[in-house]
Amino acid sequence: MSILVVGSIALDTVETPHGRREDLLGGSATHFSYAASLFGPVRLVGVVGEDFPSAHLEALAGRGVDTSGVTVVPGGRSFRWSGSYSPDMNSRETRSVELNVFGTFRPLIPRRFADSRFVFLANGAPATQACVLDQVGEGAFTVCDTMDLWIATARADLLALLGRVDGVVVNDGEARALTGEGNTTRAASRILEMGPRYVVIKKGEHGCLLVGREGLSLLPAYPVEVVRDPTGAGDSFAGALMGALARDGAVDFAAMRRALVDATVVASFNVEAFGVEGLRDLRGPEMEARRARFLEMVSLR
Amino acid sequence: MSILVVGSIALDTVETPHGRREDLLGGSATHFSYAASLFGPVRLVGVVGEDFPSAHLEALAGRGVDTSGVTVVPGGRSFRWSGSYSPDMNSRETRSVELNVFGTFRPLIPRRFADSRFVFLANGAPATQACVLDQVGEGAFTVCDTMDLWIATARADLLALLGRVDGVVVNDGEARALTGEGNTTRAASRILEMGPRYVVIKKGEHGCLLVGREGLSLLPAYPVEVVRDPTGAGDSFAGALMGALARDGAVDFAAMRRALVDATVVASFNVEAFGVEGLRDLRGPEMEARRARFLEMVSLR
Repeated sequence: MSILVVGSIALDTVETPHGRREDLLGGSATHFSYAASLFGPVRLVGVVGEDFPSAHLEALAGRGVDTSGVTVVPGGRSFRWSGSYSPDMNSRETRSVELNVFGTFRPLIPRRFADSRFVFLANGAPATQACVLDQVGEGAFTVCDTMDLWIATARADLLALLGRVDGVVVNDGEARALTGEGNTTRAASRILEMGPRYVVIKKGEHGCLLVGREGLSLLPAYPVEVVRDPTGAGDSFAGALMGALARDGAVDFAAMRRALVDATVVASFNVEAFGVEGLRDLRGPEMEARRARFLEMVSLR
Repeated sequence: MSILVVGSIALDTVETPHGRREDLLGGSATHFSYAASLFGPVRLVGVVGEDFPSAHLEALAGRGVDTSGVTVVPGGRSFRWSGSYSPDMNSRETRSVELNVFGTFRPLIPRRFADSRFVFLANGAPATQACVLDQVGEGAFTVCDTMDLWIATARADLLALLGRVDGVVVNDGEARALTGEGNTTRAASRILEMGPRYVVIKKGEHGCLLVGREGLSLLPAYPVEVVRDPTGAGDSFAGALMGALARDGAVDFAAMRRALVDATVVASFNVEAFGVEGLRDLRGPEMEARRARFLEMVSLR
């Protein structure tokens, strides 16, 4: 079934202990789209400037991503982010952010995308995320991400959004900031009370936690031996989660659990290379082989 | 089958955000014994001073722990440790250590314990741990713990010990210090090359990792909502691991995996209360109920 993602499309300059890369294809919606497209067709809505290399959009289209919802602003400059990671990769410093055309982005969902059954609101201002919900059908399975900035500066909008989405995917620090709970499990339960049916907490190398009214599920991360660039790991995780759900059609707790395995596996490829390079060259058989190895690692029988 | 543990028996003064307790029953061998005794009989070898409350040894004996190998040094003073935990419980500061009678402890294994089939060398000087190996039968399944102090000050002895044991249970920081590898998975593989058949890396709230020649297995931690005192969690984890292995008899990769589930569950009770209080009152049915809940959380089917 059809997946719609709305979020940032960026040019990233990243420095990690494994090197420095300039003007990499980046952005939350980009990482999401590469990951989700491993499972089926994706509809992408975002904005770029005239400086954006058309080859990037062509490559996405080549992966089954409908990029006709990407607005190219004449004379505009694309969203740019620059950052560096600590030697242990556990923290990162943002060196510069130029919102450029993304700063005034008001997503207009093409009418032909309004029937999307799976909708992901990548990190953005909660009011902007909410305006996407206004433009899609009632029956869609909707999931949002957020970040500390919005938790601190747009809390009321964010709480209103959480009351409208079916799921939320955040990292453990965001879950703690949103709830004031130091304990990740309690934080997840608190977010569940804010409205969503499913709360997924990403813990990076430590795996993830799913909480729903049906229960709680835990999954370790795939043990990546060489992390080259963690940028976009959370977005590719969400992309594979939504992709696997859309492929399977129905969403329930068991389907969420299964999809989190795909999310974990795809995110592991994301972090093994810079930008989207780890996803760009990934094909089904390689993904399936790692998925099988991972299932063997986490299986108790 | 019989389990032998050799290690510290202490009186701990602990401060956590949940309170302060003086002269709690502590020590690696104590936490281990309480945990292992949930699965079968345990033989304990250690040393205490004349100040040690006999009620503590009687309580252990009441749990099926043979304390006849505990030496009480006339006029001696027991090992005492005092420490405090940070608000998030992720780091601790040692306020004082008085080794006292433990400082000159040279374990003499009673001949009637020499036929123990499962032997755990709790944290101690590697040369002291090795002298226990000299006193037990060839066919025993032997596992050791260690700590940063020995990695830094007794590396040659430790490497010699690792060449003689069947398994090692260490935390992730120790694994990194021992190998110089920043990546936990690679560190585990490196330790495997040092001799043991099985390497278990404890990651606290983030679960554990098992590496053997047969493969790699990952297990999340049980999601404890209120951690009151993490002291001894690693020792109770090891105690339940060895207890479950001894109950099942044979040791292979699948048995290790199953036993790590028990280790995870028992350690979760340990951290919910001060000292050994969480284990002292624990009985089989409560443990089994949490084990079933945990299996549901980590099961993918």
